[in-house]
Amino acid sequence: MLQKPVGPDPAGADSPFASTTPPRFVGPKLPPMSSARTLVKDALHAAAAPADPILLQGWVRTRRDAKGFSFIELNDGSCLKGVQVIARDTLPNYAADIGRAQTGASVEVRGRLVPSQGQGQKWEVVAESFVIVGDTDATYPLQKKGHTLEFLREIAHLRPRSNLFGAVFRVRSRLAYAVHQFFQEKGFAYVHAPIITASDCEGAGELFRVTTLDPSHPPMTEAGDVDFRRDFFGKRAYLTVSGQLEAEVFACALSNVYTFGPTFRAENSNTSRHAAEFWMIEPEMAFCDLQGNMDLAEEFVKHLIRDAREHCAADLEFFGKFVDKDLLARLEFVLERPFQRCSYTDAIDIITQSGRKWEHPVIWGDNLQSEHERFLAEEHFKCPVTVFNYPRTLKPFYMRVNEDGKTVRAMDLLVPGIGEIIGGSQREERLDVLRENLAHHKLSEKDYWWYLDLRRHGTVPHAGFGLGFERMLMFVTGVGNIRDVIPFARTPGNAEF
Amino acid sequence: MLQKPVGPDPAGADSPFASTTPPRFVGPKLPPMSSARTLVKDALHAAAAPADPILLQGWVRTRRDAKGFSFIELNDGSCLKGVQVIARDTLPNYAADIGRAQTGASVEVRGRLVPSQGQGQKWEVVAESFVIVGDTDATYPLQKKGHTLEFLREIAHLRPRSNLFGAVFRVRSRLAYAVHQFFQEKGFAYVHAPIITASDCEGAGELFRVTTLDPSHPPMTEAGDVDFRRDFFGKRAYLTVSGQLEAEVFACALSNVYTFGPTFRAENSNTSRHAAEFWMIEPEMAFCDLQGNMDLAEEFVKHLIRDAREHCAADLEFFGKFVDKDLLARLEFVLERPFQRCSYTDAIDIITQSGRKWEHPVIWGDNLQSEHERFLAEEHFKCPVTVFNYPRTLKPFYMRVNEDGKTVRAMDLLVPGIGEIIGGSQREERLDVLRENLAHHKLSEKDYWWYLDLRRHGTVPHAGFGLGFERMLMFVTGVGNIRDVIPFARTPGNAEF
Repeated sequence: MLQKPVGPDPAGADSPFASTTPPRFVGPKLPPMSSARTLVKDALHAAAAPADPILLQGWVRTRRDAKGFSFIELNDGSCLKGVQVIARDTLPNYAADIGRAQTGASVEVRGRLVPSQGQGQKWEVVAESFVIVGDTDATYPLQKKGHTLEFLREIAHLRPRSNLFGAVFRVRSRLAYAVHQFFQEKGFAYVHAPIITASDCEGAGELFRVTTLDPSHPPMTEAGDVDFRRDFFGKRAYLTVSGQLEAEVFACALSNVYTFGPTFRAENSNTSRHAAEFWMIEPEMAFCDLQGNMDLAEEFVKHLIRDAREHCAADLEFFGKFVDKDLLARLEFVLERPFQRCSYTDAIDIITQSGRKWEHPVIWGDNLQSEHERFLAEEHFKCPVTVFNYPRTLKPFYMRVNEDGKTVRAMDLLVPGIGEIIGGSQREERLDVLRENLAHHKLSEKDYWWYLDLRRHGTVPHAGFGLGFERMLMFVTGVGNIRDVIPFARTPGNAEF
Repeated sequence: MLQKPVGPDPAGADSPFASTTPPRFVGPKLPPMSSARTLVKDALHAAAAPADPILLQGWVRTRRDAKGFSFIELNDGSCLKGVQVIARDTLPNYAADIGRAQTGASVEVRGRLVPSQGQGQKWEVVAESFVIVGDTDATYPLQKKGHTLEFLREIAHLRPRSNLFGAVFRVRSRLAYAVHQFFQEKGFAYVHAPIITASDCEGAGELFRVTTLDPSHPPMTEAGDVDFRRDFFGKRAYLTVSGQLEAEVFACALSNVYTFGPTFRAENSNTSRHAAEFWMIEPEMAFCDLQGNMDLAEEFVKHLIRDAREHCAADLEFFGKFVDKDLLARLEFVLERPFQRCSYTDAIDIITQSGRKWEHPVIWGDNLQSEHERFLAEEHFKCPVTVFNYPRTLKPFYMRVNEDGKTVRAMDLLVPGIGEIIGGSQREERLDVLRENLAHHKLSEKDYWWYLDLRRHGTVPHAGFGLGFERMLMFVTGVGNIRDVIPFARTPGNAEF
C-alpha cells in the first residue's frame, strides 16, 4: 500500500490538520506504517470481513442521527456508493464532534467491517474512532439535491464530489485507459502530436494564436505590420486543430500509430456539442485502405462501449436511472447489432426517397445535415452507420480521390442520438494528385513540403480517423452537454479554474 | 487482423499506387480478406514457420545484389530489426524492378518464412513476389549513415524511419502506456487538466498567451489598453504550466488522481533540457503526506525503468551500444539499489563539508544548483536521492509549511546524469496558512477563490508531484537532447511541422 494514513497524531496533536512530520534522516526508506487506508470500493467489495479494523478516509455525504448512534454515509470517490458508518454515542468524542460531521466535511474513521442489516449493501462499518479532518459550513453548495447543471458548472471545483460528476469523471478516466489498451494491444505506437503548430491541418478553421508578443506594443515591420519574426517561434503559431498530418509522418515510419491529445477550435458557437478545447484520438495506419479504416473504427467504438459496461457498471446504471432512461438499452443494442455501411450516393437516395419533408432538402453534392444523419442512424438503419465515398468537393485536400474522379475515400461514423462521432479517410498517397488537390484548395506547396515528402519517398496507401473523446463520452453516459463531460470546459467567454 | 493488404490489383492495375476500391454496398461488413499483413516483429519472433506464405509491407533499409538474387532488409517500424528478404532473379519482375528497391522505397513482399542461414536472425523470407509500392530517389536523405542529430531534427518528418528515432519513439509510446498502467492499476483516476487557463499555477513563469484578437488592430479600452474582455475567453488566457491545482480539485473528490498532458514554458532558453512544449505527469493524492508522496515517486520511477527493460529490450540494447555505453549498467543499478532520502538541511551539510570547490558555494537558504544535485546523486549517494523539506522562501505558495515555520514539505527526486526528474510537495491544506502564503507571494485571493474553497469545505492533507516525461525518456534512453525525444520539438524560433 502506497499511502500512509495522515491525520491527527495519536499522541495528541492540538489541531485536526496536524500530521506526522517526515523524519529527517539519510538512508533507505522506512518500512510502511502498519495501518493503511482502505478505499470505499475495496471495503464494499470485500469477500470477507478483515480481522483488524480498517481505516476509511473520505467525505461525509449524509448523516442521520438516531437514539444512541448516528449513520454517516462516507464517500471517497473511489466508486459511486458510499459506505455506511455507524458511530455510537459511546465514542469518546461523539458528543463533541458528531455535529461537525456535516455534508462535505472530511472524516477519518477506524472501524470494523460487519455485514449490513440494511438493503442494497453487503457491508457497513462500526466506528471505533472517528475524527473530523476538515470542517465545512452551511455555505457548502452540495448539501441539497436538485442543483441545475448550469449552477454546477459554476462550481466545477466542487462538482466532482457529486454523484453525477464523480461517475462522469470515473468513466472518462476508464475510457481513456481503454483507448490506450485497445491500440497498444494491437501494437500501435502512441504519438504525441505537437500542440503548438505553424501548420493548419484542415486548411481552414478558426485558430487560436499563441504568442509572447506584448499585446499593446507589438514589434512592427517597416511596412507597418506586426513583426511575427520577433514572436517566440519566429512566425505566427497556433494551437493545433488535429494531429493527423503528424500522425501520417509516424505511420509512414512505424506503420500503426495513434494520437490522443487536446485539440482546439476557436469557433464562436455556444452549442451543447462544441467546446474550444477537447481531446481527440487519431489512429493512422500505413498499408491500409478505407475498408480497413472502417473496420477499425467500428471495432474501436464497440470496444469502448464494452469496456465501459464491464468496468463502470455502477456508474452506467446511475446514468441509466437519472440521466437517460434509454441509455443501457441503446448501448446493448449498439453492441449486439453489426454496424451498417452506406455510400454517400446511396445515402442521398435513401434520404430523397424517404418521402420525408426536410428542413434542408439535399441533392448529390450537398453536405448531409444533422437531420439526415440522425434519420439514417436512428430511423432508417436503426443502428450506427458508416457513410463513405463523399463528393470530392465537400472534403479536405488530403483525402484519396476515387477512380471516378468525383468522390473521395472519406467516411463518417454516425451513431443514434449523437450523429457524427468519427470522421476519417484513406489519404491521398499519390504525389501528383495531392499537388493538384493542394492547388485546388489554394494551399501552398511550400507550407506542406514535408507532407509532400512523405509521397516522394516510399509512399504507401494509408488511412486513419478521428474520434472526439467527449462525443464518445456523451454517447456512453447519456450526458447531453459537452461541458458536463470535461473537467473544466473552455467555451466562448469561459476559461475559469 | 484489422488491416487488409493494400497494393497492386492482382488482376493487373497499371499503377503501383492502385488499390482496391471500397465496394459500394449497404449491409453488414464483408468477411476479412484471406491474406492479411504480418508485422516484421511477429515474423521475427515466430515460434514456427507458417504453412502459407506471409505478406510483409514496409520500407527497404538496404539492398545487396548477388549473383542470381538480392537481399533486401525490410523494416516496418514494428521493431528495431528488419527482416531479410531473398528475392531470386527467377521472379518475373526481378529484372525490371529490383533496381527500384532502393533505400527508402516502400515494398510489399509475399513469401515463405524459412530458417535463416545468417547469424543473429532466426528467420528470413524467400520472396514469391515483390512489388515496389512507392519509389524514392537519390534525394532521400536517410541513405547514408552518419547524419548529425542536428541535421535529423531538420527532417523530423523522416527521422522516425531511422534506427535511432524509431527506437526512441517506440520507447516513448511504451513508457506512456506504462504511466497509465501504473496509475490505473492503483485505482488512480486520469484527469485531463485544462490546457488553456486563466490561472498561473506557479504564480510566476513565462507564459504563452492564447488569443483570437486581431494582432494589428486589437480592440482597445477607453483607457487605451487592449480590451481583453473582447478576446475569445473574455479575459487574458494562457497555456498551462501545470495541471496541479486542477488535479487537487479532483483529488479532493476522487481521492487519487493523475494528469498526463502537455504543459508549456515560454522560456527563451536554448538548452538541451528545455522545450517550450513538453508532457508532464502529475499524480495527486488525498489523505497523503510527504512520505507517501516520496514512496510513490520512487516506486513510479522504478516501475518505468523496469517496464522499459521488459518491453523495449532490443531498443535499449541499441541505445546502450550507440548512444550511451553506460546506460544499461546505470538502469540496472537504479533498479537494484534502494533510493536514498536526505533533508535539504542535511544536503547543505553534506555539500559544505565535502571539501569540494563549488562554482556556486551555498549556505542554508540557497537553491541547490545543478552541480550540487549531481554531486549528491552521482558522487555522494551514488544513486537516485530525494531531497526534502526545503526552505519556505525558495518554494511556491501552495506547499505545506512545517512545524518549524521555516521549511516546507517539498521534495525533489534527483537522478544520476539528469539531475531533478521529479518535483513535488505536500500541499498546504490549512486555509489560514494558505491565505498567509498567498499574501506573502503577492497573489490575489480573488484569483484563487476556488483553490481556497477546497480548504473551506472538507479540507484534507494531500500531496503530489510532477514528472517531466521527456526527462524520464532521456534518462531511460541515454539520449542527451530533449529535442530528440519529442516527435516535433518546439523551442525558441522552432515550430516547424
